[in-house]
Amino acid sequence: MSFAELDHLCRRLEALDHAQSMLGVDEAVNMPDGGGEKRAEAMSALASMAHEMATAPQIAGWIGAAEQEDLDHAQKAAVAEFKRAYINRTCLSSDFVARQVNARMRCEQLWRTLRARNDWKDFLPTFENVVSLAREEAARRAEVLKLSPYDAMVEQYDPGSRTAEITRVFTDLKAFLKGFIPEALEAQARRRAAHPLKPFAGPFPAEKQKALGLELMTAVGFDFHHGRLDVSHHPFCGGVPSDVRMTTRYRTDEFLSSLMGILHETGHGLYEQNLPHDLAHWPSAKARGMAMHESQSLLQEMQLSRRPEFWAFVLPKARDILGLEGVSADDVLAHVHRVERGFIRVDADEATYPLHVILRFEIEQELVTGKLMPADVPEVWNAKMQDYLGLSTAGNYKDGPMQDVHWPSGAFGYFPSYTLGAMMAAQQWAAVERAVPDAAAQVARGDFSAINGWRKENIWSKASTLSTPEIMRQATGEPLNARHFEAHLKARYLG
Amino acid sequence: MSFAELDHLCRRLEALDHAQSMLGVDEAVNMPDGGGEKRAEAMSALASMAHEMATAPQIAGWIGAAEQEDLDHAQKAAVAEFKRAYINRTCLSSDFVARQVNARMRCEQLWRTLRARNDWKDFLPTFENVVSLAREEAARRAEVLKLSPYDAMVEQYDPGSRTAEITRVFTDLKAFLKGFIPEALEAQARRRAAHPLKPFAGPFPAEKQKALGLELMTAVGFDFHHGRLDVSHHPFCGGVPSDVRMTTRYRTDEFLSSLMGILHETGHGLYEQNLPHDLAHWPSAKARGMAMHESQSLLQEMQLSRRPEFWAFVLPKARDILGLEGVSADDVLAHVHRVERGFIRVDADEATYPLHVILRFEIEQELVTGKLMPADVPEVWNAKMQDYLGLSTAGNYKDGPMQDVHWPSGAFGYFPSYTLGAMMAAQQWAAVERAVPDAAAQVARGDFSAINGWRKENIWSKASTLSTPEIMRQATGEPLNARHFEAHLKARYLG
Repeated sequence: MSFAELDHLCRRLEALDHAQSMLGVDEAVNMPDGGGEKRAEAMSALASMAHEMATAPQIAGWIGAAEQEDLDHAQKAAVAEFKRAYINRTCLSSDFVARQVNARMRCEQLWRTLRARNDWKDFLPTFENVVSLAREEAARRAEVLKLSPYDAMVEQYDPGSRTAEITRVFTDLKAFLKGFIPEALEAQARRRAAHPLKPFAGPFPAEKQKALGLELMTAVGFDFHHGRLDVSHHPFCGGVPSDVRMTTRYRTDEFLSSLMGILHETGHGLYEQNLPHDLAHWPSAKARGMAMHESQSLLQEMQLSRRPEFWAFVLPKARDILGLEGVSADDVLAHVHRVERGFIRVDADEATYPLHVILRFEIEQELVTGKLMPADVPEVWNAKMQDYLGLSTAGNYKDGPMQDVHWPSGAFGYFPSYTLGAMMAAQQWAAVERAVPDAAAQVARGDFSAINGWRKENIWSKASTLSTPEIMRQATGEPLNARHFEAHLKARYLG
Repeated sequence: MSFAELDHLCRRLEALDHAQSMLGVDEAVNMPDGGGEKRAEAMSALASMAHEMATAPQIAGWIGAAEQEDLDHAQKAAVAEFKRAYINRTCLSSDFVARQVNARMRCEQLWRTLRARNDWKDFLPTFENVVSLAREEAARRAEVLKLSPYDAMVEQYDPGSRTAEITRVFTDLKAFLKGFIPEALEAQARRRAAHPLKPFAGPFPAEKQKALGLELMTAVGFDFHHGRLDVSHHPFCGGVPSDVRMTTRYRTDEFLSSLMGILHETGHGLYEQNLPHDLAHWPSAKARGMAMHESQSLLQEMQLSRRPEFWAFVLPKARDILGLEGVSADDVLAHVHRVERGFIRVDADEATYPLHVILRFEIEQELVTGKLMPADVPEVWNAKMQDYLGLSTAGNYKDGPMQDVHWPSGAFGYFPSYTLGAMMAAQQWAAVERAVPDAAAQVARGDFSAINGWRKENIWSKASTLSTPEIMRQATGEPLNARHFEAHLKARYLG
């Protein structure tokens, strides 16, 4: 039984993945500094073992034979997804991968030093090497997958999404945002003139923020029997579906950044916790790529937790726990609905964020296809920033093309996921409101059962048995459509 | 290069061991309940992978070839210890191991239920099965190792220790203790009549106990750059040498049990942290068996931390942190030098503990060699308890032969380690006092540098390059000798 061989392999790969995930969590949350060197050695050895196991040549034969076996529907889907992943994993020679890992590590290390110094010139040669290898990688993937080079790169992060589709929705969205952002800023100025932005009167002790965070995580459906919340320098959602490890960090001068971060990560956590338990060790039962994952965190954070109805539910609890004398829901919403043009993607609000992503999407496509040379990136970056957000990055590399780790680490094709996720979240929420007409009123009552029921049925339970676009089509009745996200922004910022 | 093949294998085994250790720590310290099922699956898959890798048939050839290669002294020692471990690992057929794992798991599970019910009758058949498999195991190990069956079992836990030697020191110690314990109890009664045992006035908040524990761990040399202290239900010292994870638990009505537990585990932790860094991934650089490990925790706890000089150093700190109004060093010492006859090994003090161990050593030898049938254990146990400690366990199985998990889980040959460790600790301390004549005065000043220097040079740095008896001989100038432990007991309890 070749299915049985694959099943055994999947169990072992799952065990190695479990170990790597949990060691990663421990490293961020608990590990003392001195443990780092041996931890890195162990992680690297485990990764090598997993890679060897997952790319062994005999697997191709097992897949071929399993496809001929008498399998049920779920088993067939499992083998199909395994095959897709196996092809993506094995299409590069190990010699090429080794060269690439070295180049990426070198570039990433250099980036850490040179970014702080705003030193594009010394960074460029190493970056050129990474881009050149990315082109080689894209060409090889394209050949094997019968896709265009950039599509073949996107396929790793967001299976099934294609440049043509992404371009269609991004073009629509870009045109919209270029007009929308000035309008939103004007509307915000008017609101602030009538009702000035009020700073919060802290301090907010970490234990109290944690208590509120835990209460809200529980309210929105996080299962603490299968997960926990810790503290780390960079917040994340890690662990495994049966044991989701979320982190946050607390500032004591305000409480919103941690709370919104917790709710964002809880969206990831709910997805993981509600993946199917059958064949859970197969890749078909894992979350469906980066864009879908981001749609779950953004549905939780942007669609649910930044709505006025959510704050109707939260404010009494926040008052009980944190104090917040004289703070109204409108005061909080003025903070969580802030729009501001800025240089830095990770600091951007939901309205300006997509322009940061579209800029990168446009540039990285041309880098991968060879239409743009790495040396020309700063100039193009600056021109686009001026066009999209009215900001100049001339000579300011560290807040321009050197701000993200993605390119130095060779991750081309990843950026679109963020904004695809935001659009998917808006489209999913629109579908929730059609299926559960009083969904927003349920949020105001702190009742997330029907909403989570829809998400479980339409998103979480699908795991990786379908492509991202197909899950969206089945869940919302249409392909990805920018108008839901646009309508959301208009309602929130102009309404 | 076969040495290079073995070196690569050792790195991979170290990575799997690192993962298993850290997952074990996480399970005890952090894991939510619901994570247990998948964690167990992952641990079991990792264990299988490690076992397959470590017992692969081609390894025998690599060892043989490496022995012919031009290696330096450390490399030769590494290969020799690897060979010893490989032979111990591979001498049982995988078919036999599978049968044994099943029998042990069944017996251990049954034991958990039946011990609470004091039900020896229903426990016996499964226990007989485990004993019968242990006899088969011992016979097979004996054949391969050219040792007696019981020696071959001990070899797994305490390499190089032999029944003849253990019997020699245990016979001496047993004769001593049978007379000593009544004397110690009388002396204690006299002391208590003059100076009644004073209960402590708690409560002692966990955070304060932790602060004191951390301060003392640092003082005795624990490196928090390579380790940390957490809380778990059963205290342990886990993790890896570069990242030692210790745990304790706190009761708020008294502080000594946690503090003494922390210091005990710190002894294990210091050993791990100070193992050699060269060839650290080879078994030759790992700690030398159970008896040696226990000697390090007992040297820390019994020889160092229960001395009057230690409390001269600690009491001012304990007063600062915990209060302890009106508590003198003598009040504390009356608690930490308590002697009491009891049924339960794990609750025993250092004077009565060895009799619990000797009783088990005598019984398990006869179980393994077939001189004693499992059905007759309760009768023999009762007779020995009456003889050694004057207590009857007739009909009281749960506080008699059903109290420990070792036999149900098939660990025959493990028990002697505890008392060998206690004797080794006393003998090492005697050697420390010869090498560092004012060692006890240094303890009173909280200066552990010379003492740790001796331990590092003579014990920690030897790791597994020598057998336990050889390390003892080189460190102390003589074979294991019960008189050091006896002198220690006399000085502490009769002096």
